[in-house]
Amino acid sequence: MEQVKNKQILLNNYVNGFPKESDMLLNDSATINLNLPQGSNAVLVKNLYLSCDPYMRIRMTKTEGSYFEPLTPGSVGTRLYNVFIDPVSLSLRVSGKRVPISGFGVAKVLDSWHSNFKNGDLVSGVTGWEEYSIISAPEALIKIEHTDVPLSYYTGILGMPGMTAYAGFYEICAPKEGEYVFVSAAAGAVGQLVGQFAKLSGCYVVGSAGTKEKVDLLKNKCGFDEAFNYKEELDLNATLKRYFPDGIDIYFENVGGKMLEAVLPNMRLNGRISACGMISQYNLEQEDGVRNLFLMVTKSLRMQGFIVGDFYHLYPKYMEMIIPLIKQGKICYIEDIAEGLESAPAALVGLFYGRNVGKQVVVVARE
Amino acid sequence: MEQVKNKQILLNNYVNGFPKESDMLLNDSATINLNLPQGSNAVLVKNLYLSCDPYMRIRMTKTEGSYFEPLTPGSVGTRLYNVFIDPVSLSLRVSGKRVPISGFGVAKVLDSWHSNFKNGDLVSGVTGWEEYSIISAPEALIKIEHTDVPLSYYTGILGMPGMTAYAGFYEICAPKEGEYVFVSAAAGAVGQLVGQFAKLSGCYVVGSAGTKEKVDLLKNKCGFDEAFNYKEELDLNATLKRYFPDGIDIYFENVGGKMLEAVLPNMRLNGRISACGMISQYNLEQEDGVRNLFLMVTKSLRMQGFIVGDFYHLYPKYMEMIIPLIKQGKICYIEDIAEGLESAPAALVGLFYGRNVGKQVVVVARE
Repeated sequence: MEQVKNKQILLNNYVNGFPKESDMLLNDSATINLNLPQGSNAVLVKNLYLSCDPYMRIRMTKTEGSYFEPLTPGSVGTRLYNVFIDPVSLSLRVSGKRVPISGFGVAKVLDSWHSNFKNGDLVSGVTGWEEYSIISAPEALIKIEHTDVPLSYYTGILGMPGMTAYAGFYEICAPKEGEYVFVSAAAGAVGQLVGQFAKLSGCYVVGSAGTKEKVDLLKNKCGFDEAFNYKEELDLNATLKRYFPDGIDIYFENVGGKMLEAVLPNMRLNGRISACGMISQYNLEQEDGVRNLFLMVTKSLRMQGFIVGDFYHLYPKYMEMIIPLIKQGKICYIEDIAEGLESAPAALVGLFYGRNVGKQVVVVARE
Repeated sequence: MEQVKNKQILLNNYVNGFPKESDMLLNDSATINLNLPQGSNAVLVKNLYLSCDPYMRIRMTKTEGSYFEPLTPGSVGTRLYNVFIDPVSLSLRVSGKRVPISGFGVAKVLDSWHSNFKNGDLVSGVTGWEEYSIISAPEALIKIEHTDVPLSYYTGILGMPGMTAYAGFYEICAPKEGEYVFVSAAAGAVGQLVGQFAKLSGCYVVGSAGTKEKVDLLKNKCGFDEAFNYKEELDLNATLKRYFPDGIDIYFENVGGKMLEAVLPNMRLNGRISACGMISQYNLEQEDGVRNLFLMVTKSLRMQGFIVGDFYHLYPKYMEMIIPLIKQGKICYIEDIAEGLESAPAALVGLFYGRNVGKQVVVVARE
């Protein structure tokens, strides 16, 4: 029995308002046995890359109105948080034992009796914020087949954010050539892809982000037609009118609140809004009220919220599309890589201050 | 040349806040020639029934953010307000001449050189709030074929509100047997039909209205499973939880604002909200902000605003469905009939105080 140290990041307390590094805790004293008992259905993995995603904030508050409350019987199996995430694993204790924060990641199989997985396999899916994890329901893991692209991409363009951009843009917004597309939080893990998908679809696309650096990246690296720093704009409604004199057909909503309120008057007839997140709202005691919803009626707008877990049946189709685009250099993906498990709390917190430029990844180990 | 008196209701001034009777004006001095000039493309009609509809309030304010602003080139022909409503006709003067308020109505053709219409034909469509009107684009009128139902029904169940209920419920909400349906403003021209359509579809349906009388009608006459008086409820969210312990699949939105905010936490996964109007918001200086929109994401909700004019291609199909239901007594339609053109301003104003019980109609003449 090979017993080794296993550093972990634990949730220290439930979060109020903006998350702080001190809401999380490095546990230096845990150990793990690197051999599974014979016949185990679990797999033991070494974590390589961990994903920092805005939705994780929601799971750090003990409220009933969270992602997990609205589950209804019969629909359980198709939800992201059931297929991929164990809802209790972010809670402080499970049967008296502290468990690490969980989230998407890329890992290497170190031990497995499971017929689907053998030692050395690379997998992506939900894992723990720790050096080694025992994945008790490995059926939810995706085996990584293409290893000639950066492995960290499986937390981003080839993982949940990629699927979010793909499902939200193509499936929900049903873009047509020549349409006008606006993407908020455009330099994030999802937004940068939506903008590039929009260009591939022959659309005109403008993105908003929170720094000049991000705005420049959107225009110069991701091919957005225009981008602006929303923090420098006093009147978002007027800003959007300037960038979209003819209005917006598709709004890819990552932000919510005042941004949504400013977008509605600028939407065109029969416009579509796909909403996969509303990051501006996660740290508020009470959500902002959004005005201008009557424009949904007068402009025949459709707003569709979605959870990417409902679209994972399209993952193979998405891979067929995206892998060649990456290899041909027709799509780029900006990552913000934090080194070491210790850096994970700061990296996660940084999302809510817009510190990340591109997809926020934490490297635990490179192989 | 037969010149007769032609009483008219004019808009006296643009409306601020709740409309008042004094915002309208009876003009007793107009006259009209009951014979059209030979070869005219117009038809001359005698108005029988006039429709009072909430959307009319929006056209009585001189704001740019109205129903009419969002028109974009190319989509003009399919919009309600273009096919059926002359947008300038509610303005105070057209080329210096005061024109009456316009709206949906039922009328009898008195004179026509137009090949589609002959004297004595009954028509429905947009006409003036006056005794006689000259309809300059009669192609937009619908010829009434079924005259063995109350003619006033063509302002309601067989007119725009009927189509609104039909399109919004069947086309947009796509109901399934056993689903839970909530209808606000349920005793109104549209709501009472949505509830009955829901029952015909095997759904469970609850309506909200603003008086005990209306609540009783919904339960005893329209077959709603339950109904409540929203004015007696202190916490609409809790009220909805009581009526929908398992949540709401379909919300037919007629009200907006606080009602929508209370509905969102009670929606079930993959719920649908069709929004054809938000009457609670029309008289406000600034729209209420709606919280809880992030639940659109976590519950994968779809909200679809619509304008009934986009669905008029379904009118024949709707008639095929609805006429037999009326004749077989399988559907009822509650009307609130005001007598005489003079009563029209009070009838219209009453909509915004919930004074009408059922569809508000004004009888100008019975034949």
